[in-house]
Amino acid sequence: MDSADLEIDGQRLLADLRDLAQFGREGQGVNRLSFSTEDIEARAWLRGRMREAGLDAQIDGVGNVFGQTPDVGRTVLIGSHTDTVPNGGWLDGAMGVIYGLEIARAMIEAGSPRAGGVDVISFADEESTYVGTLGSRSFVGELDETEIAEGKSVAGETLAAALERAGYAGSPRAALDPGRHTAYLEAHIEQGPRLEAEGKRIGVVTSIVGMRRMEATFHGQSDHAGTTPMRLRKDAGAALFAFAAEVTAAFEEISATDSVWNFGRVAFEPGAGNVVPRAAHLLIEYRDPSESVLDAMETAILTAADRINRKGAVRAETRRNFALAAVAMDSDLVQCIEESARHHKAPEVRMPSGAGHDAMHLARHLPTGMLFIPSIGGRSHDIAEDTSEGDIVLGAQVLARAVEAILAA
Amino acid sequence: MDSADLEIDGQRLLADLRDLAQFGREGQGVNRLSFSTEDIEARAWLRGRMREAGLDAQIDGVGNVFGQTPDVGRTVLIGSHTDTVPNGGWLDGAMGVIYGLEIARAMIEAGSPRAGGVDVISFADEESTYVGTLGSRSFVGELDETEIAEGKSVAGETLAAALERAGYAGSPRAALDPGRHTAYLEAHIEQGPRLEAEGKRIGVVTSIVGMRRMEATFHGQSDHAGTTPMRLRKDAGAALFAFAAEVTAAFEEISATDSVWNFGRVAFEPGAGNVVPRAAHLLIEYRDPSESVLDAMETAILTAADRINRKGAVRAETRRNFALAAVAMDSDLVQCIEESARHHKAPEVRMPSGAGHDAMHLARHLPTGMLFIPSIGGRSHDIAEDTSEGDIVLGAQVLARAVEAILAA
Repeated sequence: MDSADLEIDGQRLLADLRDLAQFGREGQGVNRLSFSTEDIEARAWLRGRMREAGLDAQIDGVGNVFGQTPDVGRTVLIGSHTDTVPNGGWLDGAMGVIYGLEIARAMIEAGSPRAGGVDVISFADEESTYVGTLGSRSFVGELDETEIAEGKSVAGETLAAALERAGYAGSPRAALDPGRHTAYLEAHIEQGPRLEAEGKRIGVVTSIVGMRRMEATFHGQSDHAGTTPMRLRKDAGAALFAFAAEVTAAFEEISATDSVWNFGRVAFEPGAGNVVPRAAHLLIEYRDPSESVLDAMETAILTAADRINRKGAVRAETRRNFALAAVAMDSDLVQCIEESARHHKAPEVRMPSGAGHDAMHLARHLPTGMLFIPSIGGRSHDIAEDTSEGDIVLGAQVLARAVEAILAA
Repeated sequence: MDSADLEIDGQRLLADLRDLAQFGREGQGVNRLSFSTEDIEARAWLRGRMREAGLDAQIDGVGNVFGQTPDVGRTVLIGSHTDTVPNGGWLDGAMGVIYGLEIARAMIEAGSPRAGGVDVISFADEESTYVGTLGSRSFVGELDETEIAEGKSVAGETLAAALERAGYAGSPRAALDPGRHTAYLEAHIEQGPRLEAEGKRIGVVTSIVGMRRMEATFHGQSDHAGTTPMRLRKDAGAALFAFAAEVTAAFEEISATDSVWNFGRVAFEPGAGNVVPRAAHLLIEYRDPSESVLDAMETAILTAADRINRKGAVRAETRRNFALAAVAMDSDLVQCIEESARHHKAPEVRMPSGAGHDAMHLARHLPTGMLFIPSIGGRSHDIAEDTSEGDIVLGAQVLARAVEAILAA
């Protein structure tokens, strides 16, 4: 198949990315929140580019922009999202969508008889402006309809009202077609510093890590911090510090190669210099590709809370307030992307995705693979986010070869 | 002198305290912020009660209510403050003022020739509604005049405007008279749990502890908490936890009998579950009667910050933002109060005051002593603050005998 390698047009790919970045441009980055004027305009632009490429393209009832290669029976679905967080990066999800557009376009242009084609999708509201991963969950049939009626933006608009305003309400919903879609591929910037730090150009994603959040709350007693002897205190803040130290030590012991955790938010009540804290709050987030590692981390948290409770002065409560199961990528697709990277002599590494993506919903329904390209300085969700043009084009070439291999299989 | 023991009237003392607590009453407690309507009315009431007792009483130019026993050359000055914090306790400073009123009144009523008398003072704004310990600093000549012009309440009124509104502005200022005032005595509720916990009824105050506050700030880098490997993070929050653990361990090692400390306020930026903290802030307050112990505690803080800085990922900054020197009580007065407690068979203990009082300003100018009575459950600065009537009356009896001993000396 090497002789028939699909030729993608790197300059056209970059030009499309630059054009798309004009919608909501903010310095080097983009402000393109779901269903904002800029997002609606960008979706119309994308549908136009898909049609120019020869795709049969529509915007569906939740805002998904879906372009299908005509006259083929089997396709690889390539997608991601073109909405952004406030002051987000210009690549983020947009890049994975434009990869799909370029690969579908190149394949239609090549015109040679192939075993199938490419469908391209920009999933709506991946970034949770209204309802997180709205488009991909709708596409796989896992969207709870009440979310459309009740989901709201921070500004207070319901999702139903936004879809009406955008002109999407009432349009048919695009849906996964198991007879047509043989695989889902999503390319994305890494959003972390690892590829750059290790001198790699392609991250072959093995899984999207599972993530859990625990809230730990400590109940003590507020006392005058000058007049209350140390031994008579019920210091919720001191209990939190002891707890954090124990959990940190346990996590360092338990953690596997790809475990990460974060103590991102802490607060003491009443929060005054001369008052012993009566209550203290800590938010702990931890991720790993393995549910058993996550279980062990959770056990460490519960054990540390128990120790506080056995001492008796302060009462510790823990509550799991969020859990997302780990999702493995299809092992054949992992190997396929890895081989494609090697073919292109791109230094590659297998790695988990520490962030969530639309791919985690697709993976429950069809073979799914992801690839990462480096983020300069690991920056993302920030207007400073960037990737070198060489890496952007290389990623598309690696993905294109993987698509061909899948269709040829 | 035992045969001539001054007889105070416990029921009258309690009645005056109950009457005073009506001004700004809030449940069992009191809302009587400096220069509020309630505080102004309470000051007028107090001046009236002083005059009924036979004292020559005035409200001075900063709101001090000052009553002097006429026709005596030497006096013991007894005082405290009648303003409160928001939703404060009914005793707090009020008790020490009414002790003075009752002892002066009893001494005038006794009429027998004595070597001197008692002057009574309620110092204005001890609780910092406008300018902390305003009255006592004015009385000893240590008030910076710009504080009157520039000091403001949280509501934004200047102290000068408040004094004008209250009708105090322009009145002469009461002042310490070294030829007349031989000693200053202040009784106060303990504001802590120690007397109750140890079964004592009188705390003989040996010193008002020194207090320092340090702000520690940690500067790291915000990163995505899912995609950034642990080894590549510059986690300001984790640095704060390590710092707090090291400082706590060092304080436990260094601390003397009466050392106390508090980590009262903590904050992470940006404070999100999925973002590695880019900055973290910690407020540390620590108190001890000895400056050398305070110095050692400060050194422990600086050492822990140095250790963070030597690791290099996170930069730690410390700033001492408040320091109050320790103030020793007069050793003869300590002994005098102790002997008076023993005479009254009141279980007593020498102890430092962990909180500040007007006495700390008086102590720089004349021999000063303090006594504490128990706070039920250690509660203070709260409407739940209380002390048994028996303890209230006993405290006044102990103070009265100390006054007599001082005047007889």
